[in-house]
Amino acid sequence: MAALEHLIDALRRLPGVGQKSAQRMAYHLLQHDRAGAQQLAAGLTAALAAVQTCSQCQGFAEAPICSVCSDASRDASLLAVVETPADQAVLERSGSYRGYYFVLGGRVSPIDGRGPREIGAEALLARAANSRVREVILATSFTAEGEATAYVLGEALKARGLSVTRLARGVPVGSELEFVDLGTLAHALADRR
Amino acid sequence: MAALEHLIDALRRLPGVGQKSAQRMAYHLLQHDRAGAQQLAAGLTAALAAVQTCSQCQGFAEAPICSVCSDASRDASLLAVVETPADQAVLERSGSYRGYYFVLGGRVSPIDGRGPREIGAEALLARAANSRVREVILATSFTAEGEATAYVLGEALKARGLSVTRLARGVPVGSELEFVDLGTLAHALADRR
Ligand SMILES: [Zn+2]
Ligand SMILES: [Zn+2]
Repeated sequence: MAALEHLIDALRRLPGVGQKSAQRMAYHLLQHDRAGAQQLAAGLTAALAAVQTCSQCQGFAEAPICSVCSDASRDASLLAVVETPADQAVLERSGSYRGYYFVLGGRVSPIDGRGPREIGAEALLARAANSRVREVILATSFTAEGEATAYVLGEALKARGLSVTRLARGVPVGSELEFVDLGTLAHALADRR
Repeated sequence: MAALEHLIDALRRLPGVGQKSAQRMAYHLLQHDRAGAQQLAAGLTAALAAVQTCSQCQGFAEAPICSVCSDASRDASLLAVVETPADQAVLERSGSYRGYYFVLGGRVSPIDGRGPREIGAEALLARAANSRVREVILATSFTAEGEATAYVLGEALKARGLSVTRLARGVPVGSELEFVDLGTLAHALADRR
């Protein structure tokens, strides 16, 4: 059953999906939810075509500039730096932040040869050089690598005369920002230091 | 971000995938594995086109008759009755069964108005009427509904003079056949009664 096996292999590429889950998903779709399978195929194709990188914040966009960056009503004095588009989305959903964003390409990891350059530090410094930016909020994860990322970026930003803050430690240490509950995030934003 | 939201909605239709997992999958695919997203879209489309129902066993097939039913070297005196194509696949992988299959459309569930007719009892009786079938192995799950299914089908098959067996209770009671380990299944097949 070549087509079925190929589908199972493709489903295994999803994060958190092993062989058994992939099998279960494939059988479920083909036996009980062919409309869902069609919807997923169409959704993937459409998202691949529509979702690009915002030229201003490096986050996800469905136009050259994303809807956040093109929203002139936001507070241009604030720039939040996050590790991923998913982290940006969770800060947005917290409803407590009205500034702009810069989305890094992950966090520094010396072991993997990923330094400030690899995660886009230069583009961040260029973006932060905008004269209206007063404060850069480093909203990287409270993991060792997230802290290291905040440290190196914070030093570079301070050297350029920018005010640099960090989310308050309401965020549980060792956790991924993406999985933090929204109330904790709202407090952490209010208590930023 | 309409395309992204649609993709997340589509991913939520996968069994066992909630809102958070779907978000994580969508972000992962778009940010880190666009080739995987493409592979999954293509795999879904190809499987939808290729996978049909075998006219003989009602299991999955990539031709009008599936590869098991068209394999003349199998033991035509044995017919195993399973609830789903996934259960058929796991029995095949156990490597202990060389007969043919009949795949039900699930199991009886009076609460949901699903009786013997709804799961394909008539097609099973027609298939089992083949003169070479000597023994029908009822390999339904050892859940209340699976046992009820085995009971009603077993009575109908015995009334037609067929020898009816059940997988041995090596299979943990209350569990779904699909998730049983292969060694247990092999023993259960050998000890069928
Ligand atoms: Zn943007
Ligand atoms: Zn077949």
